Amino acid sequence: MTQPKRFLSGIQPSGKLHLGNYFGAIAQHLALQHEGEAFYFIANYHALTTINNAAQLRALTREVAAAYLALGLDPQRAVLFRQSDVPELHELAWLLATVTGMGLLERAHAYKDKVARGIAPKVGLFYYPVLMAADILAYRSNVVPVGADQVQHVEMTRDMAGYFNHTYGEVFVLPEVRVSEVAGLVPGTDGQKMSKSYGNVIELFADDAALKKSVMGIVTDSAPVEAPKDPERNTIFQLYALVATPEEKAAMADAFRAGGYGYGEAKKALLAKLKTFFGPARERFAALLARPDDIEDVLREGARRARAEALATIEAARAACGLA
Amino acid sequence: MTQPKRFLSGIQPSGKLHLGNYFGAIAQHLALQHEGEAFYFIANYHALTTINNAAQLRALTREVAAAYLALGLDPQRAVLFRQSDVPELHELAWLLATVTGMGLLERAHAYKDKVARGIAPKVGLFYYPVLMAADILAYRSNVVPVGADQVQHVEMTRDMAGYFNHTYGEVFVLPEVRVSEVAGLVPGTDGQKMSKSYGNVIELFADDAALKKSVMGIVTDSAPVEAPKDPERNTIFQLYALVATPEEKAAMADAFRAGGYGYGEAKKALLAKLKTFFGPARERFAALLARPDDIEDVLREGARRARAEALATIEAARAACGLA
Repeated sequence: MTQPKRFLSGIQPSGKLHLGNYFGAIAQHLALQHEGEAFYFIANYHALTTINNAAQLRALTREVAAAYLALGLDPQRAVLFRQSDVPELHELAWLLATVTGMGLLERAHAYKDKVARGIAPKVGLFYYPVLMAADILAYRSNVVPVGADQVQHVEMTRDMAGYFNHTYGEVFVLPEVRVSEVAGLVPGTDGQKMSKSYGNVIELFADDAALKKSVMGIVTDSAPVEAPKDPERNTIFQLYALVATPEEKAAMADAFRAGGYGYGEAKKALLAKLKTFFGPARERFAALLARPDDIEDVLREGARRARAEALATIEAARAACGLA
Repeated sequence: MTQPKRFLSGIQPSGKLHLGNYFGAIAQHLALQHEGEAFYFIANYHALTTINNAAQLRALTREVAAAYLALGLDPQRAVLFRQSDVPELHELAWLLATVTGMGLLERAHAYKDKVARGIAPKVGLFYYPVLMAADILAYRSNVVPVGADQVQHVEMTRDMAGYFNHTYGEVFVLPEVRVSEVAGLVPGTDGQKMSKSYGNVIELFADDAALKKSVMGIVTDSAPVEAPKDPERNTIFQLYALVATPEEKAAMADAFRAGGYGYGEAKKALLAKLKTFFGPARERFAALLARPDDIEDVLREGARRARAEALATIEAARAACGLA
C-alpha cells in the first residue's frame, strides 16, 4: 500500500517568467497535480528579502498566479495560494527556531551564496530556511519537488522536524525531496544556464517583437550556412528540443548535421515553435490579467484550503509545546 | 499637551517569583497601571527557548498570571495576556527581520551572555530580539519599562522600527525605554543580587516553613549581638527596608547602630514584616490557583483587547509591504 502523495512547492514572485522557469520547475509542478495532492504557494513573504516595493510585489504576485493558471494549473486539483494568506505559518517557524541550533542555519549554502553575490545579509535571509521548513511542514507534504540548489533546505527541514518531534513527540511528517531532472538543463541565449541574473532569458509572456528579439539574439558560432553542424552543442537546437515533437527534433538535428542549414533559419523555426507551444497560454495569460478579481478568487479559495491544513498542524504543535 | 502613555512589558513564566522579581519589576508594573495604559504579556513564546515541557510551561504561565492578579494587577485597568494568544505577532517579527541586518542581532549582549552561560545557541535565542521588537511595536506602546539588562533590546526595537518606517513609510511608533530604578538593588540571601540562578532567593509565595528557612538562612558576618552594626552593609536591613515603613526602617537602623541587636532578632522582624506585607497576596494567590477557570477568563479577555491592537498594527504593516 502506497501512501498518498502530497506535494508542496513555493513559487517566487520575482519577475517575468522565462523558459528556464517553465522547464525547470513549472512543467513539473503542472505534471504533479495529476500525481497527488499539490499545494503551491506564491512565496511573497520570502520575496520581501529582495523586494521592498508594495506595488511591485502585488503585481508580481498577481502575474505569477496568472501565469500558472494560464499554463495549465487546475485550481480544482492543485491548491494555489498566496503565502501571506496563511500568516499563522510564522508561529510554526518560531516553534522550529526554538529547537534548531544556530549551526544548522550557519551551514546553509543559499545564505552564504546570496551574501557572496552582494545581497544584504538581513536577518530574514538568514532565517529563511526556518520559514521554508514551516511552509513544508505546515501542509504535511511528504514530497517536495525542488531544484538541486534547494535540496539542502529540504534536508534542513527534515532536521528541524526531527528536533521538534524528538523534543515534543511526533507532530511533523518528515518530507522527502524530489529533485527536478530538467532543472539546469535549459540554456539561455548566451549558452549559459538560463537565469534572470545572467540577462540571457527568453520570457514566456513577452510580446511577439520581444520574443523575436530574444530568439534572434541567441549566440552561435560563426560556422557558415553550408557547413555541417553538431546539434548537441547548439543552443537553438537544445531549446527547440524542449518544445518540438520527437520527429521535429530529429528533423532539425538531421538538417544541422547535413549542412546547408543556417542558424538564422533554425532561429525562425524555434520562434515559430515557441509561439505554437506557448501561444494558447499567452492568450490566457493576457485574458486573466484583465480579470484580476478572478485571480483573486482562485487565490482566496486556495488559501481557504491551505489554511485549514496549516491550522491543524500548528494547533498540534502548539499543544505539544504547552502553548495551548 | 502630553501624549497618553502606553506601557508594554513581558513577564517570563520562568519559575517561582521572588523578592527580586517583585521589587525589580512587578511593583513597577503595578504602579504603572495607574499612570497610563498597561499591556503586560506572559512571554510563553520566549520561554520556549529554555522550557521544553508542555505541562511545566502551562503551569508556570498560570502561576505567573495568578501572581500578578494576587499582587494587585487590576484586569479592568491593565491588559494581562498570554503572548501565545496573539500568534499574529510572529508575522510582524518576520516583516522586521526582512529589513534588519544580521549585524544588529550579532551585537546583542543578551544572546552572547546566554550562550556564554551555557544555554544552547538556538536560532530562537538569536532571533529573540526580533520577536521582542514585534511585541513592543504590535501594541504601539510608547514606553517600555525594563531592567538595565534589557535596555539594548529596546534600542534594537527602535532601530528595527526605524528601518521599516524608512523602507515602507511611517507604520511604527518608536518606543522610549524606562529603566526600573530598583532593579538590581534587591540582595539575595548571600548578599549578591537576588537571582534564581544564584540560588539565593526569597520566594513570594513559599509556605511559612520555606519562607522562614530562607530568611533564617540570610548570610551575615560573625559580629556578636552586643556589637554596633552598620545597617547599610547588611542584607537583612536592606530587605527590611523594602517592606517596612520609614519609621520601622529608622528604628531597625538605630537598633543595629546602637549594638545589642542581633542578626537573629532582625531576621525574625524581617520574617514577620514579609508575612504582613505579602500575606494578603499569598492568600489571594492560593485562592486563584484553585480557580484556574477564573485566571483563564482574565487572560482571554486580555488577549481579546491586546489582539485587536496588534491586528490593526500588523494589517498596516502588511499593506505597507504589499502583502495585502
